[in-house]
Amino acid sequence: MDMSPHTALSAADALALRYGAEHAPAHGPWNEHIALLLSHRSIRGYRPDALPEGTLETLIAAAQSAATSSNLQTWSVIAVTDAEKKAQLAKLANNQKHIEQCPLFLVWLADISRNQRLAEQEGVELEVMPYQETFLVAAIDAALAAQNAVVAAEALGLSTVYIGALRNQPQEVAKVVGLPPGTFGVFGMCVGYASPAAANEVKPRLPQSVVVHREVYGANNEREQRAAYDHLMAAFSQRNEMSTDTWTKRVIGRMGKIAAMSGRHKLVEALQAMGFPLK
Amino acid sequence: MDMSPHTALSAADALALRYGAEHAPAHGPWNEHIALLLSHRSIRGYRPDALPEGTLETLIAAAQSAATSSNLQTWSVIAVTDAEKKAQLAKLANNQKHIEQCPLFLVWLADISRNQRLAEQEGVELEVMPYQETFLVAAIDAALAAQNAVVAAEALGLSTVYIGALRNQPQEVAKVVGLPPGTFGVFGMCVGYASPAAANEVKPRLPQSVVVHREVYGANNEREQRAAYDHLMAAFSQRNEMSTDTWTKRVIGRMGKIAAMSGRHKLVEALQAMGFPLK
Repeated sequence: MDMSPHTALSAADALALRYGAEHAPAHGPWNEHIALLLSHRSIRGYRPDALPEGTLETLIAAAQSAATSSNLQTWSVIAVTDAEKKAQLAKLANNQKHIEQCPLFLVWLADISRNQRLAEQEGVELEVMPYQETFLVAAIDAALAAQNAVVAAEALGLSTVYIGALRNQPQEVAKVVGLPPGTFGVFGMCVGYASPAAANEVKPRLPQSVVVHREVYGANNEREQRAAYDHLMAAFSQRNEMSTDTWTKRVIGRMGKIAAMSGRHKLVEALQAMGFPLK
Repeated sequence: MDMSPHTALSAADALALRYGAEHAPAHGPWNEHIALLLSHRSIRGYRPDALPEGTLETLIAAAQSAATSSNLQTWSVIAVTDAEKKAQLAKLANNQKHIEQCPLFLVWLADISRNQRLAEQEGVELEVMPYQETFLVAAIDAALAAQNAVVAAEALGLSTVYIGALRNQPQEVAKVVGLPPGTFGVFGMCVGYASPAAANEVKPRLPQSVVVHREVYGANNEREQRAAYDHLMAAFSQRNEMSTDTWTKRVIGRMGKIAAMSGRHKLVEALQAMGFPLK
C-alpha cells in the first residue's frame, strides 16, 4: 500500500477518499498544502529508523509558530527517545506498542508552571492561575502547537499518532518525565517512519453537512447522514481492520460505559492534585 | 509590508524571524510546507472582499482531516457570514472590530450533542458524557480541526485570528448562533484577506530550549532565556505596536488580575449550565 503523503492527488480524488465519493463536497480552491492536510492518517506501527538530524527542531519551530492565547505560551513538550522511558509510558497508556517502537515520543504539556515561576521571580501574584479557563487555554495552546507539528512531520514523510491514553494515569506519567506542579500531559504523540504493516487508508469522516452549520446550529437530516456514514465506515473497517463495525456501534462502545474511560473519569481529581484547581 | 506567506524563505531566514537571529535553533529538514507553517501571523484587520467559491468547503475538509479522539468527532463549526450576527458576536467579544470586517467568522464548537442525539435515537445511555474528560476531548478535537483550517487558509493566501474572547459570555454567544445543550463555543476565528493596515511581522516566540525538554522536564537557564526574550519582544512591540512592553510585563498584565479574564472566571458555571457537568 502506498504510504507517501498523497500530495499529488486531485481535489476530487482526495475528497472522495475522505468522505466517500457519494458524499464529497463540491471542491473549491486547492493546492499541494491542502492535499497534504487531506492525506492525514494516524499510524500505529513504526520502523526503528532514527529521524534525520534537526527533525525535532523543525517540528518544534512549526509548533511554536501556531497561535497561542495572548502570547502566553502556556505549553511545553517533552521529547522522549530513551527506550526505558518509552516502555514505561507505553505501559501506562494501555500497552500501546507503537510508543516503544517510534524513535521519538512527544509528551505535550499544558504548562502554567513557567509563568508561575516568572511571577515568583518577579514577586507578583497571578490571580488567573487557579481557574478552569486557564487550564483550558493551556490545553488548547498545546493542541494547536501539536497539530502544527503533525503537519510538519507529514510534510517530511513521517507519520504520527496522538495518544490520548496518556491521560489514563497522568500522575504516573508525571513521575516518568519529572513534571513539576502546574504541568499536565494533555496527550502523547508518536513520530517516526510508518512500518509497511501499519499502512491504512485515509479514514472517512462524517459528511460536511453534519459538521458545518450555516449562521445557526441545525441537525436536520443528521440521522439519515449518520446511516450513510455508518455504511461507509463498516466498509472501511472491513477493508482495514477485519471488523464490520458501524460508526454508531463504535461511538456506543467508546462512550457507553465508564469502564471504557480507563481511569479518565478521575481526571478532575488528578488535575487538582497536579496544580490545576479548575475553579 | 509584504503580506504574502513567506513560503520562499530559507530555513535560516524563517527561523531568525521566529526566534531572533541570535536564538534561532540549528536548522534541520525543510520544505515549502514547513516554510508556510513558520510564516504564520494572526491578523486583526480585514478587507471586505468575499472568499472564492468553495473556500469554506476546502477549509472544512482540511479541518475534518485532523485526528479526532477515537473518531468520535465531538466538534462542529458555525459558519457566520451574516452582518448582523457578526456585529452581535463582535460586541460579545470585547468589541473586536475585525469580527465584523472579516467575510467569514467561524465559531468552533465542542459538540457532544450530536453523539447524545445518536444515543437517544438508538435508545442507549452514554455514561461517559458528564465528565471533564469528555469536555476536554471535545475542546481538543475542535482545536486540532481549527488549526488545520488555519494552515489551509494561509495556504490559500488568506489570514486568520483566533478569538478566545468568545468565551467571555458563552451563553450569550449560544443564543446568537442557536446552540443546543452539549455544545460550547470554544473560540472564534476570523477568516479573510488581511487589510494592508493590519500587516505585522512574524511574532517571536520563547527560545526552543525553554519549551522543549529532553527526557525529563527542566527549567535550567529559564530566567536568563526569558530576559533575552523580553529584549526581543520589547523591540518587536516597538516596531509593530508602538509600545515597548516586555513579555514579562505582558504576562503579568494578562494573568495578574481576575478583571483581565473579562468574565471567564465564571467558565465552570457557564459550562455546567450549557450541558457540561465537568464531573
